[in-house]
Amino acid sequence: MRYPEALDRLIEQFRRFPGIGQKTAERYALFLIDQFSEEDIVAFMETLHRVKSEIAPCTQCGHLTDIQPCTLCRDDRRKTTTMLVVEDSRDVIVIERAGLYDGQYHVLGGTLAPSRGIGPEDLRIKPLLERLKDDRFEEVILAMNLSDEGETTAMYLNRLLEGTDLLVTRIAHGMPAGGNIGYADEVTLFKSLEGRKKY
Amino acid sequence: MRYPEALDRLIEQFRRFPGIGQKTAERYALFLIDQFSEEDIVAFMETLHRVKSEIAPCTQCGHLTDIQPCTLCRDDRRKTTTMLVVEDSRDVIVIERAGLYDGQYHVLGGTLAPSRGIGPEDLRIKPLLERLKDDRFEEVILAMNLSDEGETTAMYLNRLLEGTDLLVTRIAHGMPAGGNIGYADEVTLFKSLEGRKKY
Repeated sequence: MRYPEALDRLIEQFRRFPGIGQKTAERYALFLIDQFSEEDIVAFMETLHRVKSEIAPCTQCGHLTDIQPCTLCRDDRRKTTTMLVVEDSRDVIVIERAGLYDGQYHVLGGTLAPSRGIGPEDLRIKPLLERLKDDRFEEVILAMNLSDEGETTAMYLNRLLEGTDLLVTRIAHGMPAGGNIGYADEVTLFKSLEGRKKY
Repeated sequence: MRYPEALDRLIEQFRRFPGIGQKTAERYALFLIDQFSEEDIVAFMETLHRVKSEIAPCTQCGHLTDIQPCTLCRDDRRKTTTMLVVEDSRDVIVIERAGLYDGQYHVLGGTLAPSRGIGPEDLRIKPLLERLKDDRFEEVILAMNLSDEGETTAMYLNRLLEGTDLLVTRIAHGMPAGGNIGYADEVTLFKSLEGRKKY
């Protein structure tokens, strides 16, 4: 016993998304049939089409945008002395929402992951080095995540930038707000202790 | 700072699905931009269109189908003496996969939920009563889930069928395979004890 073929295909398509298994995919597909009107489906299809035709990485920083270059790169009120390097566009959005940074961004588009065949040429590393030739830059903040791949990528970039005049920094890692030491993982605890400061 | 507008709309559309919050919706939208090729998007759009145009509830049993009546209702090897009443199409698929039942199905399309404005006329209850007029039916198995709404619906149907010659039964509820009493909820435990059998 299977679902009708078109429904099976929709389930398959939902299963492609990260973290969606068979049951969740079925749930989404049945929800869509039940709750989306004809117009909703048309709107959904239009959005899919627009997303693919309008949105691309910024030719300068790599952030997803519908104008080239993106609004962040265009904004000449932003400082041109610091470059914050992140893994993906979501990181940019989160940091911008927090309103804590007003320099330039560079989105790598992932992390080095030799085991999955992702090498330096698969990330926006060359464009980063090109951009950093601009003499106005004084500091490069490496804001990769605290994971094996994030750390490897940060180390790799740090080595590439050795010998330049740039100050290369790494964001702090440790216990987050609201975090409970009793439930913390070892890596976070280690970073939290290693990075301790005089009271 | 927001995402480009088309991307924001896609995020909104993903947020409509059950259990998807802002962060998960962003994750799916970014995944789609990153991982779906032009052809993948077209295929996704086609599937959405097909699902809406081809699939409808079976005119007899209410199960989602692309032929009328559905393959289950057409199958004349299936017994016509028992009617299994379920909440939705997924229940039918799961029971069929298990291969434990070979009678007729009836999909209600939900449960009674007065607090959300869902009354008997919103479910396929009248068509169920019509179908049960067929003299060949001997038993109606109420397979609603063990929830307030499922129980209410089962009670309601049971009352409607009082006075007929039909044997009305309710599926058993209790501890599931692999379940741990130490982590069981009260309702399951209650049902498990209430439904105990002589060893």
